[in-house]
Amino acid sequence: MPFSSIAILSPGLLGGSLALAVRQRMPGVRIRVWARSEKGAQTALARGAADIAGTDVEEIARGADLIVFCMPIGAMPGVAERIAAVVGPETLITDVGSVKEPVVEKLGAIFRGRAQFIGSHPMAGSEQTGIDAARADLFEGAVAFVTPEQGARRETVSAMASFWETMGCRVSITNPRAHDDAVAVVSHLPHLAAAVLVQTAMQENPASLEWRGNGFLDTTRVASGPAPMWTEILLQNREPVKKAIHAMIENLAAVSKLLDAADAEQIEHYLAGAGETRNRLKSKCP
Amino acid sequence: MPFSSIAILSPGLLGGSLALAVRQRMPGVRIRVWARSEKGAQTALARGAADIAGTDVEEIARGADLIVFCMPIGAMPGVAERIAAVVGPETLITDVGSVKEPVVEKLGAIFRGRAQFIGSHPMAGSEQTGIDAARADLFEGAVAFVTPEQGARRETVSAMASFWETMGCRVSITNPRAHDDAVAVVSHLPHLAAAVLVQTAMQENPASLEWRGNGFLDTTRVASGPAPMWTEILLQNREPVKKAIHAMIENLAAVSKLLDAADAEQIEHYLAGAGETRNRLKSKCP
Repeated sequence: MPFSSIAILSPGLLGGSLALAVRQRMPGVRIRVWARSEKGAQTALARGAADIAGTDVEEIARGADLIVFCMPIGAMPGVAERIAAVVGPETLITDVGSVKEPVVEKLGAIFRGRAQFIGSHPMAGSEQTGIDAARADLFEGAVAFVTPEQGARRETVSAMASFWETMGCRVSITNPRAHDDAVAVVSHLPHLAAAVLVQTAMQENPASLEWRGNGFLDTTRVASGPAPMWTEILLQNREPVKKAIHAMIENLAAVSKLLDAADAEQIEHYLAGAGETRNRLKSKCP
Repeated sequence: MPFSSIAILSPGLLGGSLALAVRQRMPGVRIRVWARSEKGAQTALARGAADIAGTDVEEIARGADLIVFCMPIGAMPGVAERIAAVVGPETLITDVGSVKEPVVEKLGAIFRGRAQFIGSHPMAGSEQTGIDAARADLFEGAVAFVTPEQGARRETVSAMASFWETMGCRVSITNPRAHDDAVAVVSHLPHLAAAVLVQTAMQENPASLEWRGNGFLDTTRVASGPAPMWTEILLQNREPVKKAIHAMIENLAAVSKLLDAADAEQIEHYLAGAGETRNRLKSKCP
């Protein structure tokens, strides 16, 4: 890969982990880190996650071959406008946002004719946040979406895919809209369902939380994730998420009807179908 | 504890684990195991989970100080009737069923005047089944409900609670109905939600399952549980479960409305509330 210098904008859990992964997997590449605060920049240096770190985003972005936006989605356009004048036509720019269509539209427009922008979404993370939780292996085995706009150059897409493969990801190239539809169902809805399960337990029977078993703990783990970030994700992807919510409501109502009818055969069929599908997917906690 | 001989009826995951736990924590106590098949009885002996094992339930139950029903809930009354004639007035009898009101009503009636019956529910288990998955530490740290009927003798309740404490459980004494309401919310609904999430993903976007991350895997892990057992649990506890389903539907619909209104503040408040509650609960996978 032809990168000699990578700029990581915002060293939180994802940005910090990416810096550590680049350090480990791309020796010799210079890592430039922009943080909003002096303290953030110092912490990145202290963790060995940066060769240069600072709070002036133009200075950090200037001269980097690859620039990765790792801040919350809503903050990306403002930062993109600040660096638009210092990037070159061959600079590769990407982001790690969890929703792609709105990001690709906005950042694509800002960098059009100025640099090569391609959206990414490495499906990595945890319920923790911040550089203190960063780890070099965060991306290992994760799916990374690369979501080019129509008409993106093939070699740019390919360079972007190679980068994530170098970080240890399995890459899936898809269009931004298809990405957003898929993650609504497989990521955003499960997150919301976890929060809803906790809230439902609190409303219906708060004492029951004293008696939760491992099933409840696993099913609701992601509800511990950062609320501001998830609020932004759900709002940015709201049409696909609403569609997924309504599909879930219909499924719940259908099961309730089967219970009303005491239809053991159909209930077992429904649960067994879910179980078979779930068994085909690899489990995390063995 | 005054038990010299314990009969475990049906050595599956729970019964087998209970036998191994008794072996480890109550040395000297004779373990009698009843299995439906010769093979089941032999396996229990081979795993060291029984001193005596056989397929004649009257013979196994006769003379035991404590008898524990570990088969599916629906099979319990039939077995209870078969042993009703061989138990004595001081025999302590319990079960490990996940729903308590229907079990306590039926088994309570069968053993009334013949033995001391008290329902139990150790909240232990996994998505695996059968004696091959049994482990002596399955009950360690788990909550065990003890659910006496009105008018149960205090010393019987106390003996039952001590038994589960000896198995490593934290005991909660509650009435059968309150138990069923609580587990509907904290166990049965999460199980159903996991199955619904898998089915929703399959219906809405089957390709998205290729891209599931750890969030989806954790949230849906329990969907791998045995479908026949869960069908029985949901049906036996169907009124509280239906109430919990409808509360979840209302919560999902409320979030969908907040998304429609793009009400970031309320969405964040909802997610943060769930996150704070979830953070107070201990996590399984650190």
